[in-house]
Amino acid sequence: MLRSFSAALLCAAALSAAPCDLIVSARYLVTMDARRQVIDNGAIAIKDSRIVAIGARAAIDRNWQPKRRIDRPNAIITPGLVNTHTHAAMSLFRGIADDLKLQDWLNNFIFPAEAKNVTPDFVRWGTRLAALEMLLSGTTTFTDMYYFEDVVAETAKEAGIRGVLGETIIGFPVADAKTPAAALAFTEKYLQRFKNDPLIVPAIAPHALYTNSDETLKASRALANKYNAPILIHLSETKKENDDNQAKRKQTPTQTLNSLGLFKGRTVAAHCVWTDAADQNLLKLGNVGVAHCPSSNMKLASGAAPVVDMLKRGIAVGLGTDGPAGSNNDFDMLEEVDLAAKLQKLVRGDPEALPARQSFELATIGGARALGLDREIGSLEVGKRADLIALSIDGPNAVPLFDVYSQIVYALKGSNVIDVVVNGREVVRDRRAVTLDQAAIIAKAREYGLSVAASVKQKH
Amino acid sequence: MLRSFSAALLCAAALSAAPCDLIVSARYLVTMDARRQVIDNGAIAIKDSRIVAIGARAAIDRNWQPKRRIDRPNAIITPGLVNTHTHAAMSLFRGIADDLKLQDWLNNFIFPAEAKNVTPDFVRWGTRLAALEMLLSGTTTFTDMYYFEDVVAETAKEAGIRGVLGETIIGFPVADAKTPAAALAFTEKYLQRFKNDPLIVPAIAPHALYTNSDETLKASRALANKYNAPILIHLSETKKENDDNQAKRKQTPTQTLNSLGLFKGRTVAAHCVWTDAADQNLLKLGNVGVAHCPSSNMKLASGAAPVVDMLKRGIAVGLGTDGPAGSNNDFDMLEEVDLAAKLQKLVRGDPEALPARQSFELATIGGARALGLDREIGSLEVGKRADLIALSIDGPNAVPLFDVYSQIVYALKGSNVIDVVVNGREVVRDRRAVTLDQAAIIAKAREYGLSVAASVKQKH
Repeated sequence: MLRSFSAALLCAAALSAAPCDLIVSARYLVTMDARRQVIDNGAIAIKDSRIVAIGARAAIDRNWQPKRRIDRPNAIITPGLVNTHTHAAMSLFRGIADDLKLQDWLNNFIFPAEAKNVTPDFVRWGTRLAALEMLLSGTTTFTDMYYFEDVVAETAKEAGIRGVLGETIIGFPVADAKTPAAALAFTEKYLQRFKNDPLIVPAIAPHALYTNSDETLKASRALANKYNAPILIHLSETKKENDDNQAKRKQTPTQTLNSLGLFKGRTVAAHCVWTDAADQNLLKLGNVGVAHCPSSNMKLASGAAPVVDMLKRGIAVGLGTDGPAGSNNDFDMLEEVDLAAKLQKLVRGDPEALPARQSFELATIGGARALGLDREIGSLEVGKRADLIALSIDGPNAVPLFDVYSQIVYALKGSNVIDVVVNGREVVRDRRAVTLDQAAIIAKAREYGLSVAASVKQKH
Repeated sequence: MLRSFSAALLCAAALSAAPCDLIVSARYLVTMDARRQVIDNGAIAIKDSRIVAIGARAAIDRNWQPKRRIDRPNAIITPGLVNTHTHAAMSLFRGIADDLKLQDWLNNFIFPAEAKNVTPDFVRWGTRLAALEMLLSGTTTFTDMYYFEDVVAETAKEAGIRGVLGETIIGFPVADAKTPAAALAFTEKYLQRFKNDPLIVPAIAPHALYTNSDETLKASRALANKYNAPILIHLSETKKENDDNQAKRKQTPTQTLNSLGLFKGRTVAAHCVWTDAADQNLLKLGNVGVAHCPSSNMKLASGAAPVVDMLKRGIAVGLGTDGPAGSNNDFDMLEEVDLAAKLQKLVRGDPEALPARQSFELATIGGARALGLDREIGSLEVGKRADLIALSIDGPNAVPLFDVYSQIVYALKGSNVIDVVVNGREVVRDRRAVTLDQAAIIAKAREYGLSVAASVKQKH
């Protein structure tokens, strides 16, 4: 009698629960919302591409009736990681030439390798390889600067990964455009094709101040603003870049870009290692997002970006891996989070600098702000896109657990990622890619490796 | 007819082949021998605990008849990684107090936590947890400084991991000794018990110059030399340590240790961040091995050790993770290899500094030299102990492959380790620990986590 009474109650509860597509639950939900709430034994209800409820698991289960569910009692769920700067298809050049001076690396290895190898097919497979590595290690949004960006966008949609994807504009002939004017024409078609896409934010990526004419930079800004597209650009990566611009114009690169009007519209600037206080004020005034790339800046000996200073000034700072051909050489965002925290401590001589939670902010809500997407992604909140990852805390590197942020930043690895949801779609489940054919991608990458190696001078 | 003739030939070959216990083969063998040979499609024959042959797979298969074999056509085999500095059992304090100034961290969190929690049982389970994480991520030798080091040694033998294990001598009452004299007496029994052990090198670990009296340091050296045991010690980790010693003695810590005769015998000094040219000459003259800990030095804002300078002076330098309670917080040696290379590039402003192969030397043959064990471990050579690991190159972060050292150092992860052999014994196979009960260890670590959290002040 008691049993059937309970069953009737449960049935009534189920009947009164609202339908949704997916419920995910975990031991901890690290929301990264404005209050930085961490919910013990929490759950998230997802409908279509968005979060419709978040809270204690018992309440979510009472109120929502999902088609599918993912329950992870030994995991932490966080917002998906946001990579604010990379060159995904360069995965096929991974480690082709390391431990070299920047100009030697670019002029004698990378540019020749690109001239001989970059085609739409190369970009498609390179982006597939990158997307596979990114998704499996917890990245749900990547920001790209490369060639044939329409192919990158097609591939990102196929993989189910979110992308802010910038077509490169550069002052010499490249694989997809003979001139900057041709590149701008190509880009306009690309912007038109992918506007309003739920996964893709098409963007324009003038490579840098020092590789483009002022006219091209102004034309890029005008085109970007016509479509409300962001501009992605490298800025003050090396001391040489600053010194050269001072010699030529008696200005910092940031001052020059500002005076050209480049910041009058959505802009994401990668690196900003050599920005001073005045530069940072210009970035803040221009609402420019900064992509901090600690691995790349260390590996290329560029320096250490003044991240703590930029954050104090209210600049939106995200993290990026940079490309895997010499500057990293992987897409592992949890390594960048760890390294960002350690690098600021080192260069400031202060172990309290950029503590774990703040470093994790850079990889989530901070990166979303830097991309101008913080109303859509970067935290787990009702109304936002359902971009999230589950990190196992059931491995030897994950116990005991005293503080979730500390564990995520200093102890957990990309290999601890077990599930990934992007835009409400499960794209990794139980550490396996759902959307991509891993065996085919690895086989093709090896094939490209052989042809790339045969085509260019190698260091060894 | 042809078939039976071939079979007879094969049979004759098998009969003429010498017996061995294990053959391991892989796509690449990175030997780290004096010529730094990399063998394509190579194999290693192992008998008892030692390598009896290494070369092309076809030749090894022709000449040796193994009881078992491990064939990894999609892997790189390298010497096992050598961790030259850690505090293994502190795994149970992982992340208990991060992002703090060193003295605050030690005095308000770590020392009280140790006083309330460290027992033989704690050390046993903490070391099991550490050994599990170390083996799964490719470490085959670890260098430890902690309490109840006899328990650490028992646990290392149980796990099948090699250890240079130093019993701590420190100038205040600790869990296993009320006084330094009591600690020295405890240590002598420990040295006697584990002398001539095939896996364990028992050692004495006077914590540092600033935490011991000169008399204790001299007594430690005398005891060490009586048993030909190494001394393990922290040295010049922070600028404060140097400044305090200058104020007190008008000497650097290295000068003081040298004048006390501490370097007259096997010595491994951890950190050496603040050593100058004169200090480094003393270290070289004393044949002192250096344990460089890049993660720890960055996280605690200690500084960047002058590794390139030390290597130029011919000092034997290895890598260490340091302990996981605030200074790292994991035991992942492939991260240290990556970070060591990047850190030298950053602080020297030179992307050619500490290239991939040289950084990998630190984690293998360099570490072995630092520990005085390079005749036994650190490279894959006939006559050496069979300590080796297989790294999968079949994942998305491992393709394409242009240079094995670059791939290992900048792209592969601890999670790419698939097999581990220590002293001829398979201790990890297919990413699973053979010798340790992972589920029991993780459950116990969680249990200890709760009691540790209840016993001490926590930061959050």
